[in-house]
Amino acid sequence: MTIGQTVFLNGAFRPVADAAISPFDRGFLFAHAAYEVTAVYGGRFIDLEGHLSRLRRTLDGIAIPNPYTDEKWAEIHADLADRNGMEEGLIYLEVTAGAYGFRDFAGPEDFVPTVFLYADTRPLIGDAARLGIKAICLEDSRWKRRDMKTVQLLSQALAYRTARDAGAETAFMVEDGLVTEAASANAWIVDAAGRLITRELSHSILPGITRAGVLSLLKGSGITLVERAFTPDEARNAAEAFTTSAGAMVAPVIEIDGKPVGDGKPGPVTRRIQRLYYEAMGADVAAVAPWALG
Amino acid sequence: MTIGQTVFLNGAFRPVADAAISPFDRGFLFAHAAYEVTAVYGGRFIDLEGHLSRLRRTLDGIAIPNPYTDEKWAEIHADLADRNGMEEGLIYLEVTAGAYGFRDFAGPEDFVPTVFLYADTRPLIGDAARLGIKAICLEDSRWKRRDMKTVQLLSQALAYRTARDAGAETAFMVEDGLVTEAASANAWIVDAAGRLITRELSHSILPGITRAGVLSLLKGSGITLVERAFTPDEARNAAEAFTTSAGAMVAPVIEIDGKPVGDGKPGPVTRRIQRLYYEAMGADVAAVAPWALG
Repeated sequence: MTIGQTVFLNGAFRPVADAAISPFDRGFLFAHAAYEVTAVYGGRFIDLEGHLSRLRRTLDGIAIPNPYTDEKWAEIHADLADRNGMEEGLIYLEVTAGAYGFRDFAGPEDFVPTVFLYADTRPLIGDAARLGIKAICLEDSRWKRRDMKTVQLLSQALAYRTARDAGAETAFMVEDGLVTEAASANAWIVDAAGRLITRELSHSILPGITRAGVLSLLKGSGITLVERAFTPDEARNAAEAFTTSAGAMVAPVIEIDGKPVGDGKPGPVTRRIQRLYYEAMGADVAAVAPWALG
Repeated sequence: MTIGQTVFLNGAFRPVADAAISPFDRGFLFAHAAYEVTAVYGGRFIDLEGHLSRLRRTLDGIAIPNPYTDEKWAEIHADLADRNGMEEGLIYLEVTAGAYGFRDFAGPEDFVPTVFLYADTRPLIGDAARLGIKAICLEDSRWKRRDMKTVQLLSQALAYRTARDAGAETAFMVEDGLVTEAASANAWIVDAAGRLITRELSHSILPGITRAGVLSLLKGSGITLVERAFTPDEARNAAEAFTTSAGAMVAPVIEIDGKPVGDGKPGPVTRRIQRLYYEAMGADVAAVAPWALG
């Protein structure tokens, strides 16, 4: 990853070296902030409308006024990508409840948000997509409103560290004996009959924009989808597994808790979904992801 | 509250106006940070050792190295109070996993913490202690490791806002039909037989330093203590209720969900505990809290 030299902070584009926030910012004191990460490929934003729509819902849920219209948000995103010469990568966006020079849980009646965006130039279709990643299963300790995309991400940060210590790249989070989702991605498995299984939306998981994108691509594909929660055992014994997120898009999971998933290589349904997804985002699949052609 | 003009940030005392952190700080991006709030009364710190001990446990639990020895922490606290001429108030302390100029959930193997402290001069024995506060009961949506004092405080921030909208000052958080604790304080009730009831320590609640202080004062008081969880109904029908925290110390709860607790005034057991607590911290109770003398 390469962080762009120009960031957007509170209404202005400025050098990243000059970007500073107050330690009284409610993002820093109370994790009172929403965020989004939107992918850019070939200079085009992927599902920006979906990200902005979810941002609106999160902000509404955590009492922060949305500082911009969707049109203005889109303009800021495009401008930031341009200023950083970014053709492929991620735009990170965080909106906090603002800084007031004091600390009070409830805060003022009306918040004046802090807005921060930066550009992260990186290849979106890389080794993880080609070779797959390893996962471990971990107890999900997150708060109960995971449908809101907030910066209360400590559980996930610790989960990634535990995964790394175990030689894995991600974690499947488990609650009440069922997988909720991956550490910062939705989780999917393919059963022996070739059916695709992913957990239904609720307060327990994030309504992934990439998840929604994949669902829309399934129509007419002949792939059967079952929206239900699955157990860690089902995942470990699945024919295939993968995660979806804006950053890693469709990442095959080839090992769970040290046990190979299927034959330990990305499977045909996963490859098919990668191909559908890459095509939808305008990629020349034969050139950039020939391994997805199956 | 009056925020002191001198704060401590990353090894140096500096004017609050110059205090800035990076938007790439993990406290801002991931809520990856511990905090403590320690009371100062008559120029003396109340239970600073207890706060520093809990800080050590939290930092250990969230993979952040403790940047200072207890001796150095005590020195920074004392120096900060001195520089701000603070005789009574609170010292806020936050230690984050640091800033690295990029965003990666797992982060580097070893963290270099960000350290921020400020002084908040305020009377500790005020109207809330004298007149009591109102509470509402709210579903507890927090993460599962509330025994660690982290800045994942969004649920609490929203709870205080909901309470304010309902004309109350705090919330009793409820999970599985039982009160866990108040929004940023431990919760206590007194039953009809005069027994004091507060929830036993577990991952579900914060091990309050003021809670521990009150427990130690009960020895020899003749007050019977029962450590167990109680229901919202028990709280609403209790003879008395109060909360404990470093900031509000012992705050009588005189109304829950619009219903008076007991006769709607701070009760005798609460007053007795306030008196014991104020005496232990060296207050001239007859002068500053005559209402606690009963």
